[in-house]
Amino acid sequence: MALPFRRESEETDRLLALSDGVIAIAITLLVLEITVPEVPAGTPPSVVAGLVFEQWHEYLGYMLSFLVIGLYWMLHRRIFVHIEVHDRGIVWLNLLFLLLVAFVPYGTSVFSTYPNRFGVSFIAAVLALTGFSLAALWIYAARKQLIEEGIASRAVGIQAARFLASPIVFASSIAVASVNPVWAMLTWVFLIPINGALNSRLAERLEDESNV
Amino acid sequence: MALPFRRESEETDRLLALSDGVIAIAITLLVLEITVPEVPAGTPPSVVAGLVFEQWHEYLGYMLSFLVIGLYWMLHRRIFVHIEVHDRGIVWLNLLFLLLVAFVPYGTSVFSTYPNRFGVSFIAAVLALTGFSLAALWIYAARKQLIEEGIASRAVGIQAARFLASPIVFASSIAVASVNPVWAMLTWVFLIPINGALNSRLAERLEDESNV
Amino acid sequence: MALPFRRESEETDRLLALSDGVIAIAITLLVLEITVPEVPAGTPPSVVAGLVFEQWHEYLGYMLSFLVIGLYWMLHRRIFVHIEVHDRGIVWLNLLFLLLVAFVPYGTSVFSTYPNRFGVSFIAAVLALTGFSLAALWIYAARKQLIEEGIASRAVGIQAARFLASPIVFASSIAVASVNPVWAMLTWVFLIPINGALNSRLAERLEDESNV
Amino acid sequence: MALPFRRESEETDRLLALSDGVIAIAITLLVLEITVPEVPAGTPPSVVAGLVFEQWHEYLGYMLSFLVIGLYWMLHRRIFVHIEVHDRGIVWLNLLFLLLVAFVPYGTSVFSTYPNRFGVSFIAAVLALTGFSLAALWIYAARKQLIEEGIASRAVGIQAARFLASPIVFASSIAVASVNPVWAMLTWVFLIPINGALNSRLAERLEDESNV
Repeated sequence: MALPFRRESEETDRLLALSDGVIAIAITLLVLEITVPEVPAGTPPSVVAGLVFEQWHEYLGYMLSFLVIGLYWMLHRRIFVHIEVHDRGIVWLNLLFLLLVAFVPYGTSVFSTYPNRFGVSFIAAVLALTGFSLAALWIYAARKQLIEEGIASRAVGIQAARFLASPIVFASSIAVASVNPVWAMLTWVFLIPINGALNSRLAERLEDESNV
Repeated sequence: MALPFRRESEETDRLLALSDGVIAIAITLLVLEITVPEVPAGTPPSVVAGLVFEQWHEYLGYMLSFLVIGLYWMLHRRIFVHIEVHDRGIVWLNLLFLLLVAFVPYGTSVFSTYPNRFGVSFIAAVLALTGFSLAALWIYAARKQLIEEGIASRAVGIQAARFLASPIVFASSIAVASVNPVWAMLTWVFLIPINGALNSRLAERLEDESNV
Repeated sequence: MALPFRRESEETDRLLALSDGVIAIAITLLVLEITVPEVPAGTPPSVVAGLVFEQWHEYLGYMLSFLVIGLYWMLHRRIFVHIEVHDRGIVWLNLLFLLLVAFVPYGTSVFSTYPNRFGVSFIAAVLALTGFSLAALWIYAARKQLIEEGIASRAVGIQAARFLASPIVFASSIAVASVNPVWAMLTWVFLIPINGALNSRLAERLEDESNV
Repeated sequence: MALPFRRESEETDRLLALSDGVIAIAITLLVLEITVPEVPAGTPPSVVAGLVFEQWHEYLGYMLSFLVIGLYWMLHRRIFVHIEVHDRGIVWLNLLFLLLVAFVPYGTSVFSTYPNRFGVSFIAAVLALTGFSLAALWIYAARKQLIEEGIASRAVGIQAARFLASPIVFASSIAVASVNPVWAMLTWVFLIPINGALNSRLAERLEDESNV
């Protein structure tokens, strides 16, 4: 007795519902890590501006983690648009990815508390591991041929590069942080052109075949 | 190979699932900012009432932020009812909107801690930016013609006014707060008749054409 | 141009998604209000049991609020199973209901901190208001004839009683609390037989007509 | 008048939406229990490593609770894939399960604060109760014949074993903890081979009949 289609797709729906739930909560909890500045009554505006400026690393941590999780969510969406069936391996690798996503607010909190070599390396390590777990999910699905035929074979190099680029940048920044934590933070800026370039190249390659 | 319809709509579903998730969490986290009043055992009821009254700004902040996010959620719904396809621009602008929505509990917390010129300006700025990012999403979708034909062209002025009205009120209240923070809070009351009037006028305009 | 069915039902989906999200978060946040007991190393088990027993009101508050929100969620489900179209009134009344649901963790926290006349009255008032806002949603929908014909007219008395019973019990317990807070808490036990009886009577009445 | 199919499935959708919501929030809130280590500026890396190592029980608690809730979520998915109709009993038992799931972050917090006999027994008791409530849900559904015919009768022993195995391991570890808390934690490792073996045997049994 084969299960009716509705049921199988319902299971995928719940996998995505749990994933979207954890991701939505993780990015929203990030804000709890930002502390309200201590501004005594009657503080002149220029001093308040100074106090807020001193918290730059908390705002940076919030935006960094929010946008990186947002990027991973988009890649996650990409995987599951193409997955046709899923087995226990997918479910457990997805759970590992969520475990790391849910850990990001803690990593961000460590970075906000210690915006030095230790904190920079810590958040970079957490974001690198999260990205690698997502890449593992993609590679597993591609190897096990759980994804649409055609997608896996086409543009393989670029697809892999898209999943690996961000975690590699974060892993590299740990090495840079051992020299200078500020330089390490600056390497994160490379994420924008790298992801942009990979997306454009992937789009070009796929364009004549389908409108992904 | 064109993607089957189910997949494209599934992607929109996940965008809305993430958005609804972040919005639901942000409005529910607001309550964590309200502190439990310190009421020693045996305090007479009249004194308790006084202590609760002293916290008026925390309750006001909760209700303000809850209702304004609720209003933005309704406008967000409006946009996505009409969007037919979405590209990366939509996804990133939506993420920016969510980043600002998730920041509202922090803004509310600043207002609750400093119910003076600083706090009033801060929450007004956060709510204004959030509203402007949503307006940007609508304008982008309209410009790129990603929304249903007809909707964008019809009643353009009122549609734009609906998206811009609330953030403009908040932006204006920052100027008022530099004179008097209480007056600034009173300007927020204008949000009710303004949104009501714009909705009625939009409904009239669209009524004979469709029941949006 | 009438909107296609898919869109209208999509809008209802988002209303329910936001509602389920807020309700799920509110009941899960309740646990954050329970404090971890201070148990010095080497405390004998009997003393630990005593310390945990001293926190009875925190566990009681958690279970009470969780189950009452659960009950309200079931009634909310009942309303929206029968609603065929929804207007702005439904959306705003629903938002008011969610605002009060999201306030329950705060009310529970007040009760946990002050398990006396003040706290008992406070949580009872919050739960009563939440229930009355849900009853208002039902009454509005029934008056505006937004619900399936037949359902509203059939068994009107019992339907209204189901929505009003729980908030009336909580409102009454505020009066009892002014005499004795423990008796007030005991009146909450009546919720179980009252809801059970109303459900059975409603089921009987509807049974021969449909299997709601 | 029988309810149309869409409505009944919508109700199940909301039950699953609430369940997935509570589960997603509970596993994401776990991270809030991990404290940021106190690392004075200029602490040498070896000392930092030592400080992080001292927090091993917080990381262990996070991973344990995350993975066990993940496992229960998978079993929950299994139940609802097979449930064809649901009555009030299902709804209340599901709510009891969610009440216990939402309690897990508190249990984890107790374990993180007291990684001794008391804390080990406490988290084991919470996870055992949560698992038993899920087993009760399955047994109730099977008894009331709310699940697909065939599934309940086939492989009954293995199905029951799958639901009961994990809570029994946790219940047993409470007894072990009274002798030695470290041994108790080691018994939790048995969860991996036990669940793996039961899954394989179940898959074998069902394979020739359907691809669950």
